[in-house]
Amino acid sequence: MNVELSQNFGKIIRELRKEKKLSQEELGFQSNLHRTYIGMIERGEKNITLENIEKLSKGLDVSMKLIFEKLNKIH
Amino acid sequence: MNVELSQNFGKIIRELRKEKKLSQEELGFQSNLHRTYIGMIERGEKNITLENIEKLSKGLDVSMKLIFEKLNKIH
Repeated sequence: MNVELSQNFGKIIRELRKEKKLSQEELGFQSNLHRTYIGMIERGEKNITLENIEKLSKGLDVSMKLIFEKLNKIH
Repeated sequence: MNVELSQNFGKIIRELRKEKKLSQEELGFQSNLHRTYIGMIERGEKNITLENIEKLSKGLDVSMKLIFEKLNKIH
């Protein structure tokens, strides 16, 4: 697994979640993903799939493009 | 699996590959991914991971942001 990539992706998701003032539990609920999975993503412990990237973008109410725009700046 | 999402992602990869005049085999070599996996991605048969999205973006010599910019237009 490319840990650096997953960790940077996790940083972006955490940043966006905090901007939206959501807890991991609230984001999990809005993304139809488990709270613990959100935590693992934010800590870079998972090689997330495209389907779950889309679920997170919907839960955060941002486009997938925006997520990758931010990721490309730090990675 | 969200087939529509995977199929739309596959369309973008195929479009970019053809723009670059690469065969599936050449893209596979440049992405460090197997040729058959490239075919499966383009046909929307795989729920691709973040790590392989990055490998494809490197093989195509485009940013991940560009891939998702194109995906957001059709999906």
